[in-house]
Amino acid sequence: MMKVVALAGGVGGARLVDGLAQCLPPEDLTVIVNTGDDFEHLGLHISPDLDTVCYTLGGIANPPTGWGRAHESWRMLESLAELGGPTWFRIGDRDLATHLERTRRLCSGEALSKITQEFCCAWGVLPLVLPASDQPVPTWVSTDQGEMHFQEYFVKRQCQPRVQGFRFAGVEAAEPAPGVLSALLSCDLVVICPSNPWVSIAPILAVPGIRAAVAAKPTLAVSPLIAGKAVKGPAAKMYREFGQPASALSVASHYGDLLAGFVLDRLDARLAPEVEAMGIRPLVVNTLMKTRASRRRLAREILDFAERFVLTGN
Amino acid sequence: MMKVVALAGGVGGARLVDGLAQCLPPEDLTVIVNTGDDFEHLGLHISPDLDTVCYTLGGIANPPTGWGRAHESWRMLESLAELGGPTWFRIGDRDLATHLERTRRLCSGEALSKITQEFCCAWGVLPLVLPASDQPVPTWVSTDQGEMHFQEYFVKRQCQPRVQGFRFAGVEAAEPAPGVLSALLSCDLVVICPSNPWVSIAPILAVPGIRAAVAAKPTLAVSPLIAGKAVKGPAAKMYREFGQPASALSVASHYGDLLAGFVLDRLDARLAPEVEAMGIRPLVVNTLMKTRASRRRLAREILDFAERFVLTGN
Repeated sequence: MMKVVALAGGVGGARLVDGLAQCLPPEDLTVIVNTGDDFEHLGLHISPDLDTVCYTLGGIANPPTGWGRAHESWRMLESLAELGGPTWFRIGDRDLATHLERTRRLCSGEALSKITQEFCCAWGVLPLVLPASDQPVPTWVSTDQGEMHFQEYFVKRQCQPRVQGFRFAGVEAAEPAPGVLSALLSCDLVVICPSNPWVSIAPILAVPGIRAAVAAKPTLAVSPLIAGKAVKGPAAKMYREFGQPASALSVASHYGDLLAGFVLDRLDARLAPEVEAMGIRPLVVNTLMKTRASRRRLAREILDFAERFVLTGN
Repeated sequence: MMKVVALAGGVGGARLVDGLAQCLPPEDLTVIVNTGDDFEHLGLHISPDLDTVCYTLGGIANPPTGWGRAHESWRMLESLAELGGPTWFRIGDRDLATHLERTRRLCSGEALSKITQEFCCAWGVLPLVLPASDQPVPTWVSTDQGEMHFQEYFVKRQCQPRVQGFRFAGVEAAEPAPGVLSALLSCDLVVICPSNPWVSIAPILAVPGIRAAVAAKPTLAVSPLIAGKAVKGPAAKMYREFGQPASALSVASHYGDLLAGFVLDRLDARLAPEVEAMGIRPLVVNTLMKTRASRRRLAREILDFAERFVLTGN
């Protein structure tokens, strides 16, 4: 058996992590989750990616949206709208309990990683899920309309401003959450999930110590771009705004020498030789995960690929 | 027409205020509400009496309980219970919006009185509703089991500890909220609602300046005790624990020389001569308010009584 660490952002990351969790014993899977888009809203500490990953692994996520909880209701938000309160970030009634209780525990001095583990326990999430860091490392986006917090860019402005750069505030002084480095040290394989390289994976790798620990392990990434488009989110738009083609190849060169392997969608099969020319072993499969079964199928193909080529070095 | 200021706590106070609002033009009614049982819970600023009064006046209160909102759901609380969070104080999903938005505005520096007026506007509450003070004056209860915050005594311990005294923390330095003193100065009549004298009305009167302003005006109180029992809450138990009979007479002597008139229930008719002997004009009527119509009926009787005897001094 192979011990795997997955680096994940939100929806796409959560789906592949769910696939990996269907293939691996829970003790062999650790998930390190982006906290760069954590933010405070209505006085609540909100960790969108942690929640998406945990809700998905706990089987309580809302499949149509990919975020929030299943069987959700919106009474609080309706009543908040009556009062003229801020409703641009949509919090459901069930989801709200997560934010309230997380905020309460953070204010009483508990660490985000400890809170996350206790929530996982309550939700029946068996793999270890860790925030990249217990310290806040909020992502700020430089745009043609000024610098703004990621959530303002992402939700309030719907990714409309043109990006010019990113800043993970305070990341130089942040430390990996307890368990992150030891999971990386003791794993056989790192899987970078099909999450946004700029704003989901980069904030994880920017926490001092994490990038070096990943670099020391056989690592493969799954492209979040298929035929030049992101399944969800602004990744393709961001590559274009940085003057790079919106292509899986740009993702592979983005991660560069971290990668031993790279997983491309069948629609990008023609790019495989160029990946190989970069010294990275390509795997061409169907990377769309529309069902729980397709998540498991993709995870199985990735793990088999890793066993055959990446781990043996052949 | 007569300008009336009502001093009110929670459920009983809200019911009489609703009756007064059915009898008076909105500009002739101001309600000064207890904030001594305000508290912080889950990081939220909760003002139970303000909410009960405003929800009742807005027609959005939950009649069976007397607190919280009608058509309420409890999804957040169910999900909070899954996480092992504190569920002893029951917050509904709609109600939660009030606490979240109030807390957000308080944290951004707005005054409780201003926030309350804007909420009233959103809920269609026409009379002016004011917190006694914009500064926190939390009620602490001395008991045989130690001193505790009022909400711990009231909700968590269900009034089981034996009370020994009350403290309204910080009240010496508190100021009446903007509008409180001017409403008292310009009114013709003060009505002390059938709320708990110890923990609903005393914290209002303890704010410097309010008691003197009430004393300068014709004032009448409605007994919250009927036949020695409180319609709701621990008032009767408190009188006994202070060694006083749980009787409307104890309430009348409690307010003492503030009162020109005192409203007793028909079941306490035999006490009327003793009230009169205290130099206070008694009114004996049915003080139970089971329906909206009975609230109006009681308010009408009180206003007629005030016009006939209290205001004319006959």
